Amino acid sequence: MSQPRFGAGLWHFASYVDRYAVDGYAPPVTTLEAIARAGEVGDLSVVDLNYPFTPGVGLDEVKDALKEAGLAAIGITPEIYLRKFGRGAFTNPDKAVRHATYDLIDEAAGVVRELGADYVKVWPGQDGWDYPFQVNHHDLWKLAVDGIRQVASPHPDLKFAIEYKPREPRVKMTWDSAARSILGIQQTGLDNVGVLLDFGHSLYGGESPADAAQLLIDHGLLYGMDVNDNLRSWDDDLMVGTVHLTEIFEFFYTLRINNWDGVWQLDQFPFREDTVDTARTSIRFLKALHRALDELDYDGLREAQERQDPIAAQRLVQDALLSCMRSDK
Amino acid sequence: MSQPRFGAGLWHFASYVDRYAVDGYAPPVTTLEAIARAGEVGDLSVVDLNYPFTPGVGLDEVKDALKEAGLAAIGITPEIYLRKFGRGAFTNPDKAVRHATYDLIDEAAGVVRELGADYVKVWPGQDGWDYPFQVNHHDLWKLAVDGIRQVASPHPDLKFAIEYKPREPRVKMTWDSAARSILGIQQTGLDNVGVLLDFGHSLYGGESPADAAQLLIDHGLLYGMDVNDNLRSWDDDLMVGTVHLTEIFEFFYTLRINNWDGVWQLDQFPFREDTVDTARTSIRFLKALHRALDELDYDGLREAQERQDPIAAQRLVQDALLSCMRSDK
Amino acid sequence: MSQPRFGAGLWHFASYVDRYAVDGYAPPVTTLEAIARAGEVGDLSVVDLNYPFTPGVGLDEVKDALKEAGLAAIGITPEIYLRKFGRGAFTNPDKAVRHATYDLIDEAAGVVRELGADYVKVWPGQDGWDYPFQVNHHDLWKLAVDGIRQVASPHPDLKFAIEYKPREPRVKMTWDSAARSILGIQQTGLDNVGVLLDFGHSLYGGESPADAAQLLIDHGLLYGMDVNDNLRSWDDDLMVGTVHLTEIFEFFYTLRINNWDGVWQLDQFPFREDTVDTARTSIRFLKALHRALDELDYDGLREAQERQDPIAAQRLVQDALLSCMRSDK
Amino acid sequence: MSQPRFGAGLWHFASYVDRYAVDGYAPPVTTLEAIARAGEVGDLSVVDLNYPFTPGVGLDEVKDALKEAGLAAIGITPEIYLRKFGRGAFTNPDKAVRHATYDLIDEAAGVVRELGADYVKVWPGQDGWDYPFQVNHHDLWKLAVDGIRQVASPHPDLKFAIEYKPREPRVKMTWDSAARSILGIQQTGLDNVGVLLDFGHSLYGGESPADAAQLLIDHGLLYGMDVNDNLRSWDDDLMVGTVHLTEIFEFFYTLRINNWDGVWQLDQFPFREDTVDTARTSIRFLKALHRALDELDYDGLREAQERQDPIAAQRLVQDALLSCMRSDK
Repeated sequence: MSQPRFGAGLWHFASYVDRYAVDGYAPPVTTLEAIARAGEVGDLSVVDLNYPFTPGVGLDEVKDALKEAGLAAIGITPEIYLRKFGRGAFTNPDKAVRHATYDLIDEAAGVVRELGADYVKVWPGQDGWDYPFQVNHHDLWKLAVDGIRQVASPHPDLKFAIEYKPREPRVKMTWDSAARSILGIQQTGLDNVGVLLDFGHSLYGGESPADAAQLLIDHGLLYGMDVNDNLRSWDDDLMVGTVHLTEIFEFFYTLRINNWDGVWQLDQFPFREDTVDTARTSIRFLKALHRALDELDYDGLREAQERQDPIAAQRLVQDALLSCMRSDK
Repeated sequence: MSQPRFGAGLWHFASYVDRYAVDGYAPPVTTLEAIARAGEVGDLSVVDLNYPFTPGVGLDEVKDALKEAGLAAIGITPEIYLRKFGRGAFTNPDKAVRHATYDLIDEAAGVVRELGADYVKVWPGQDGWDYPFQVNHHDLWKLAVDGIRQVASPHPDLKFAIEYKPREPRVKMTWDSAARSILGIQQTGLDNVGVLLDFGHSLYGGESPADAAQLLIDHGLLYGMDVNDNLRSWDDDLMVGTVHLTEIFEFFYTLRINNWDGVWQLDQFPFREDTVDTARTSIRFLKALHRALDELDYDGLREAQERQDPIAAQRLVQDALLSCMRSDK
Repeated sequence: MSQPRFGAGLWHFASYVDRYAVDGYAPPVTTLEAIARAGEVGDLSVVDLNYPFTPGVGLDEVKDALKEAGLAAIGITPEIYLRKFGRGAFTNPDKAVRHATYDLIDEAAGVVRELGADYVKVWPGQDGWDYPFQVNHHDLWKLAVDGIRQVASPHPDLKFAIEYKPREPRVKMTWDSAARSILGIQQTGLDNVGVLLDFGHSLYGGESPADAAQLLIDHGLLYGMDVNDNLRSWDDDLMVGTVHLTEIFEFFYTLRINNWDGVWQLDQFPFREDTVDTARTSIRFLKALHRALDELDYDGLREAQERQDPIAAQRLVQDALLSCMRSDK
Repeated sequence: MSQPRFGAGLWHFASYVDRYAVDGYAPPVTTLEAIARAGEVGDLSVVDLNYPFTPGVGLDEVKDALKEAGLAAIGITPEIYLRKFGRGAFTNPDKAVRHATYDLIDEAAGVVRELGADYVKVWPGQDGWDYPFQVNHHDLWKLAVDGIRQVASPHPDLKFAIEYKPREPRVKMTWDSAARSILGIQQTGLDNVGVLLDFGHSLYGGESPADAAQLLIDHGLLYGMDVNDNLRSWDDDLMVGTVHLTEIFEFFYTLRINNWDGVWQLDQFPFREDTVDTARTSIRFLKALHRALDELDYDGLREAQERQDPIAAQRLVQDALLSCMRSDK
């Protein structure tokens, strides 16, 4: 099968702070610099851009920078997780902040149109709670669902992709799993809302990412996906292919047998490493994985799965996966 | 508010084996002996009975024993997790085993009618998978949902309560969370299928049990619940009230504000302790928790939750919870 | 028993950023402002101060501010986790950074003397690794231990307290548990190095904090401790007493029966809440816990523990703990 | 490097029960049948035998069966986790049970001599606690350490290998990590006590198994090891090489660079699969891993690790690991 298209969140090429290294792991990087770095990777076709851009950077400059870098926009991610939204975006107890959320997403929808992107990415990282008893769960979930309806219904021509995550930065997030996201999307009653599945979120949340992908596909809701890896129990956003080799392979296998042909995106946070080199190393792995997918014995695997036979299945998987870096390829 | 009715899974009064203590932590206990022990507790009104009963024990004997012990049946739990079902009940790759599952549940439905119980409890502990790539996730989920439809549709007068659990004995279980269970139940298209929420399953699965209860109530699907506790990450089935005091309080608070008035059931596995004394100690705690619920400042808490103010909320919670064992009560 | 002395990390009164809310959850707070806030709490006797102070703030100003606030310094925490140390402090592959670590800690030792504090707090949050295969584990551990020896040996009159933690900000930290810390300290061959036990670190790292405290006390190495809470699996640094009531009680019980009489310190990160009110609420709980300790039936508990009888033990524990917020106290 | 010797716990070829499938996942298997099955695998040189053997089976029969199967004994594992020891072996509150523990291990030591095995394997799975406040941690640890001294000191000519594990069957086990085990062994003051490192225990306990192995080697205490895999957070004892490919590779890499040349043992529980086929599939993987070790660029990796450069390291690792199933081998 022909090579997939590769993409990345633009934040992959940023610098990072956390609650300890408050001076940042590296000097700040502007939107335009990040686009240039993304272009350096060499294999990326698209990026998902945080919005607003760095202060002072206009839409035309972004368009030019993308063109210069040989990139297109796949999505726009409004930053509904900055200070203003620290106590929640859609679920903020303050109505004014909820409206600020709607407004920012509305702006982002405009940028999606301007850049010809595929979707508004909605990642409500601050929506949820920190403590037992902090919220009324009925009311909170209603705010979450109503909020999505509020922002997506005025734009029936655009797609809105919710990226669920179990926790962080909120201690417990509202949109926390594939099944819960499907339920909430059904409650919106809209057909332009779907899910962006992050492999690492699914994994550390206790799902099988392959199973989550299948469930979303079966509901027609897998709008996008991104990959990375972690050392279990947290969203470490490590380079894909460095820890969970079998499970990332099963994830892409599931996409393949369903003929899901979207972009293979990176969502990594290389706090301490070179951002371009990190992306290249990840894509090098993904290409090898793609070769492994080409070599897999699909009939044999299907038969093994019909018997639910893990011995036969794993032998076929190991044969394909552990040969994919062969030098003659 | 008047005292709740208390119940327990009859297995609470059994003896246990595990993969190491293969000779069992205590001598075997028959169905009738377990019923007698449940009666000794003194505060139990109902039990959920495993089915089949101990070989040789008939339905009339069970009825008599229940009467003798002052107990009624709340549910029947068919044992679709014994050797025959080791590779799955509803999702077993062997059609004959799936049919054996249907048959056993059908029998159990008959017992529910005979005993005037509330529901057939369906706990598909062997349904799922152990390894990545072992199953086709689309097919597995279809088997799971179709199986429930198969057993529940012939009995529209009876309720079927699915008890979800993330894992164990299967490494990964199919019905693994509240949201996933709601999705699956919706897919059955039936209105006599709901959920039995186990506090410990929800907790170690990464849910907030209070939030899960609210979601189920909002879908009209909370058919039953049981409680216990664990030391995080596994279904230890410890005595309720020994580890997660705040979260069990929030769970019952959520039931109370929704006027959910079902039975407070115990699902504990006292491997190494006296089973009657374990139950008594648990109920002693639950009564104290019930007093704490009576003393809670609901208006104050509601206001705090409207502001999503954890400081105010926790102060009110601590005031009620950390006073509920007062000797004058 | 007389009231304990309370303390807090000065960072409890700061503002915070994380990798998402890069503009901070609140406006920046200087060292002097944080001291003033700590003073407002009303029950704090001591603080542990990050070093260096806010640029422009001198030692004399800090002394004055502490005096003004009615506070003393208990420890100094050199910030060996900022950008310069992002790839490690003691274990940094770059020798120059390792020496910068030594120098900063040496400076901090001077401040400890100046302020009459009890210890240099050493928290090597960036020491460790992110990926499998990233480091040679023998060499890394040697760097970690040699580094501690390097900084502590020139100051035999001062105490150095290592605060272990399983992970964050490093994906995997070198000093990650009580037992590992004891081993490493033994390897230094010094007698002025011990441990500061953080309740939350211990808990989410899979230890029993009570057991960890006992092990450290038995080795004469429990130099200090701080408390907080979390929702399992991560260092959420929530208010103490909001989730794990029984385990925090067992922790303080263990300190009491060992006559450990150090300061009860808070290490909390109130990202979204008022920092002073958070501290007050925490101390309100700790005072209640202290009352519960006074009321506990020690003889009864000792007997129960000799039989390893959890039923008897938990009943005694619940009687004391679930009565400690009584209004007449 | 020449092929490693392979081994397995004899229980790998048994049948299993758990607390749900109380009738067992398969019919019972005797000691002699299990030995025959181990022989069928074809690549096994040694087995670790549970003791006592199946009732009625004598030592001579075992010797004959081993000879017949082409196997030798590497260790003997006394079953200090059956009913009698359900509340603890070394740490049982009942002195008589502690003495029964000593006696059984003494017998096992005799069998080690008779069979010319390498060590007594000590796995105190029931030692620990279930509930907060159940035990006095000082006393419990003392019982644990004293017990080891008690059984190992009369046999200075034999090796005793403690296998640590975080939990199960006890909710929290006493010997729970590599560092804690080293501490305890040092406290025994003996030089014939070491550790058997189980890859899965280390992994789900939050250690890096490679790091744990290095720490044990640096203390001269790595007496043995066994491998398997799990889906995180529990000891699933799955086939090795089915989930954590990179980490098992790092584990064996660490053994290789330290010239650790012991047996590569399997400790797997194939509840639902053919036990012989499971072992063969695991060894097939281990042989591939061994080839990958032969192909690894050690100089390049060492240089990358000196820089703590995960990008360079992972590229080298992927090149070796993901080629090891090449058909021309």
